[in-house]
Amino acid sequence: MTDRKFAIGLDFGTNSVRALIVDIENGNEVASAVDPYPSGDAGVLLDPKQPLLARQNPSDYINGFYHAVSNAIQLALDTKNAGFNPHNVVGIGIDTTGSTPIPVDHNGTALGLLPQFQNDPDAQSWIWKDHTSFAEAAEITEKASQYQIPYLSKCGGKYSSEWFWSKIWHCKRINPPVFDAAYSWVELADFIPAFITGNPQPDTLPRGICAAGHKAMFHHQWGGLPSAEFLASLDPDLVRLRNHFNIDTKTSDQQAGSLCESVAKKVGLIAGIPVAVGALDCHTGAVGAGIKPGTLIKIIGTSTCDVMIHPLSEPLPDIPGLCGIVPGSVIPGMYGMEAGQSGVGDIFNWFVKNMAPAAFTETGNTHSALACEAEKLLPGESGLLALDWNNGNRTVLVDQLLSGLVLGMTIHTTAPEIYRTLIEATAFGALTIINRFEEYGIHVQEVINCGGIAEKSPLTMQIYADICNKPMKISRSAQTCALGSAIFGAVVGGAYKNVETAQQAMTGIKEKMYFPNPKSVTVYKQLYKLYHDLHDSFGLKEYSQGLYHVMKELINIREKVRK
Amino acid sequence: MTDRKFAIGLDFGTNSVRALIVDIENGNEVASAVDPYPSGDAGVLLDPKQPLLARQNPSDYINGFYHAVSNAIQLALDTKNAGFNPHNVVGIGIDTTGSTPIPVDHNGTALGLLPQFQNDPDAQSWIWKDHTSFAEAAEITEKASQYQIPYLSKCGGKYSSEWFWSKIWHCKRINPPVFDAAYSWVELADFIPAFITGNPQPDTLPRGICAAGHKAMFHHQWGGLPSAEFLASLDPDLVRLRNHFNIDTKTSDQQAGSLCESVAKKVGLIAGIPVAVGALDCHTGAVGAGIKPGTLIKIIGTSTCDVMIHPLSEPLPDIPGLCGIVPGSVIPGMYGMEAGQSGVGDIFNWFVKNMAPAAFTETGNTHSALACEAEKLLPGESGLLALDWNNGNRTVLVDQLLSGLVLGMTIHTTAPEIYRTLIEATAFGALTIINRFEEYGIHVQEVINCGGIAEKSPLTMQIYADICNKPMKISRSAQTCALGSAIFGAVVGGAYKNVETAQQAMTGIKEKMYFPNPKSVTVYKQLYKLYHDLHDSFGLKEYSQGLYHVMKELINIREKVRK
Repeated sequence: MTDRKFAIGLDFGTNSVRALIVDIENGNEVASAVDPYPSGDAGVLLDPKQPLLARQNPSDYINGFYHAVSNAIQLALDTKNAGFNPHNVVGIGIDTTGSTPIPVDHNGTALGLLPQFQNDPDAQSWIWKDHTSFAEAAEITEKASQYQIPYLSKCGGKYSSEWFWSKIWHCKRINPPVFDAAYSWVELADFIPAFITGNPQPDTLPRGICAAGHKAMFHHQWGGLPSAEFLASLDPDLVRLRNHFNIDTKTSDQQAGSLCESVAKKVGLIAGIPVAVGALDCHTGAVGAGIKPGTLIKIIGTSTCDVMIHPLSEPLPDIPGLCGIVPGSVIPGMYGMEAGQSGVGDIFNWFVKNMAPAAFTETGNTHSALACEAEKLLPGESGLLALDWNNGNRTVLVDQLLSGLVLGMTIHTTAPEIYRTLIEATAFGALTIINRFEEYGIHVQEVINCGGIAEKSPLTMQIYADICNKPMKISRSAQTCALGSAIFGAVVGGAYKNVETAQQAMTGIKEKMYFPNPKSVTVYKQLYKLYHDLHDSFGLKEYSQGLYHVMKELINIREKVRK
Repeated sequence: MTDRKFAIGLDFGTNSVRALIVDIENGNEVASAVDPYPSGDAGVLLDPKQPLLARQNPSDYINGFYHAVSNAIQLALDTKNAGFNPHNVVGIGIDTTGSTPIPVDHNGTALGLLPQFQNDPDAQSWIWKDHTSFAEAAEITEKASQYQIPYLSKCGGKYSSEWFWSKIWHCKRINPPVFDAAYSWVELADFIPAFITGNPQPDTLPRGICAAGHKAMFHHQWGGLPSAEFLASLDPDLVRLRNHFNIDTKTSDQQAGSLCESVAKKVGLIAGIPVAVGALDCHTGAVGAGIKPGTLIKIIGTSTCDVMIHPLSEPLPDIPGLCGIVPGSVIPGMYGMEAGQSGVGDIFNWFVKNMAPAAFTETGNTHSALACEAEKLLPGESGLLALDWNNGNRTVLVDQLLSGLVLGMTIHTTAPEIYRTLIEATAFGALTIINRFEEYGIHVQEVINCGGIAEKSPLTMQIYADICNKPMKISRSAQTCALGSAIFGAVVGGAYKNVETAQQAMTGIKEKMYFPNPKSVTVYKQLYKLYHDLHDSFGLKEYSQGLYHVMKELINIREKVRK
């Protein structure tokens, strides 16, 4: 019993933090505890006057860490036959949302924790889905695309309003006092390891290659961060921040430090446990879902991350529209490639919250009630088509100034029809990403899905199989992000020689798979063409065709299917 | 007391028939009774497998006539100081929906009333909003546009699936036994006067110029109905029907006959009362709302009719996209010009029925509850834009193969925001019609609205004023269609020398008017440009531009308004 070894994975999500305790021999999840962030609307600070704004209170992370880890440990201790013992925790790994930069003072204290800033939303953490800095993103894209160094070549050709420099620059413009007070800005993925290892000083705290590479234009090809000259061309004040950033970035199989005494005591762990360098949630999620070359990992939550890897030893072109291609960001020795959809579960939840009639909401499980009716519909039967852009489009357009669209409504259109259409729209978005990988020579040999929707919505998974015309597999673990973090914990704890070996022992897929239905595939191919026309008409500046055929063909398909 | 004279107006709507008893001296509405049609869904026979199908049971009309007139008479008799006496009814006028053709046998009996056909939906009355015959409409349009006689020049250049010949031809194709059993097809507007005057024989019953001209391509320019040669080019079997149609069409200031003994007895009236030739509801509605040259009458219900008139003595170009330009169809001596929107109230009701969450439905008045929140929004604030095409587009595109569209949704978009956007979409549709009239030299000097929505929704009227940038006036009568019919009853009863004199005595507008708010006008001008781009991209075959700017500009406007 006492031989068993454990790793702890921490997953800082949009609404809560999860601590997962894993048996490193087989990946068994011994205990798990979630701490919902108490601030704002389910942890997100909103402003009804600025729908693009989304912030978080840094204290929610710190308290969330303490609560979630303590509770998980208590649960593990209470679990019979688990054989858990805090002394047998070999390592801790951490993943977070991103880009979620936090302004900090010279000690590394988040400004939002200081009394003078605690009510200022701009001094809090700028969570990934904050899109207030769309103008700055556009300016960075424009400047960078004319610059002699190809800073955008590794992030799909466009810099996003979701990312590090856009947000910081926007803060400078709208709130100079906060900008001036910030000695540095730290990604949440780096902030937590720094905090729990007691090394928060911004100049020295280890920065992970994952967040730096995917969000801050960091790449060894140009020696790290963008040049001072380039940043000065945006705003001379940005150069200062470049100087408070440790450019010796690390992969997550490396240690950020070891658990400091004060934190260890609070949660019931032993000081000195190795803590892995932090990474973005979808990257550790890909590891926890068993990523390997040829496997697309789709982490489906409020948004999706789509991750693939490719050996550094093989040639890889720049792929326009991808969020990033970063050596080592997922697994050392591999390019990590990240794509994603800005809204998936967020869109379904929006519909359920704002548009579902009482007949569905009063069942107590609105998603199930809608899905139950939606499942009875054939592809094309509703005559509807939607764009999955309520949160903008991350891949392949990289454009937050987009919005949702539903068309094809008659006066008989029902809520379950629209619900199904929104699911289909996200599947068309998913297919667009797969197509982009394949157009650039990255063959998608299998798709493994993870996240709550993959687990809980057979309707969604079947539609994804039919629209992508590929079997949909589901990760065995329901907590792939936290599991991936635990895998990094196991590796930095010395339990495995590398990430791949740890994955072989600790990950797997479920027996249940979703296979494409050939009849549905045929109809969805027709619908995808129309989706694609809408996508290009609203999404591409240079597109110059009318959409006269779209409503006509939808009615045509509908009439055929109904016969 | 006994001097008072009365006219009865009958209005056969989509869901019910109304009988209105009017004091002819001043238009006072002495009594009114509504009889809802008992068949189908609120009087409309539907088929869930064919969303385009909409039929009615002819017996609902006949029973509805008896019930509504008897009840109205009883109410008038019970009303103190009304001075009503059935002997003082000078005339009866009738309006109905249309094109609503009914297949009849050689006696003029509706096939749907015969035992062998009573369960066959194709043997019933084909109500205006039946769009099953879209293919036939397209073929008629194609054939007619190549024909030497310009049959489409008076109906906007396109023949509609809502109209007479499309429906009959479709019946021939899908149900030959019904088609063969039909000796003739009679518009509901002609069917009722024929029935109550005891002259239902199809060869001789008077046909009104209003339905014939607007729906059956009847025009004196080509000697009445389309030629036998033309109809044969569609289908030789259609020619037979042409021969059972009295081409001596009449305006509604002429008598169809006089109330027959058997009908009079059943409702408590005196046999022999003059009965006016029937007309379409929106045309009598325009009369009841006080139409004159320069005045646009908007009858806003489930759909809208937009009616203007123009002196026969002045030149008038053909106006593409209008549903019809027919001499005498509204007022003798004037061109009657009809335009319209296929869905207005229908779209609002659709949203309320299918998409409104419990917070609004449980108030008991969902429209009011949504309107109350929607009223607090500024133009452009939601970032949304919609097309009002859930029922297709009647004017100016004349295309039923179109559908609804809403765009601009974020994950914060609320039901009241969408509700308001749907109202705005119908207002943009209304403006498109006004612009079309003005582009062809018909200046819209004033707008008078009538119908339930004009009466009950200040929000809708204010949005219409702001979007059309014109004051919105409301007809004094809440029952302008029935009142217009009563005016024709008064004229055929000899109480007035012509329609205009009767209108002066019997019509008027309400004191409350809605004036454009200059700030709203400015924003709506920007939004209308975007509506117009969507309209043209989805509605015009030859359009060849992208819509990249639409979402961008909506966000731009939204951000400005929110500041």
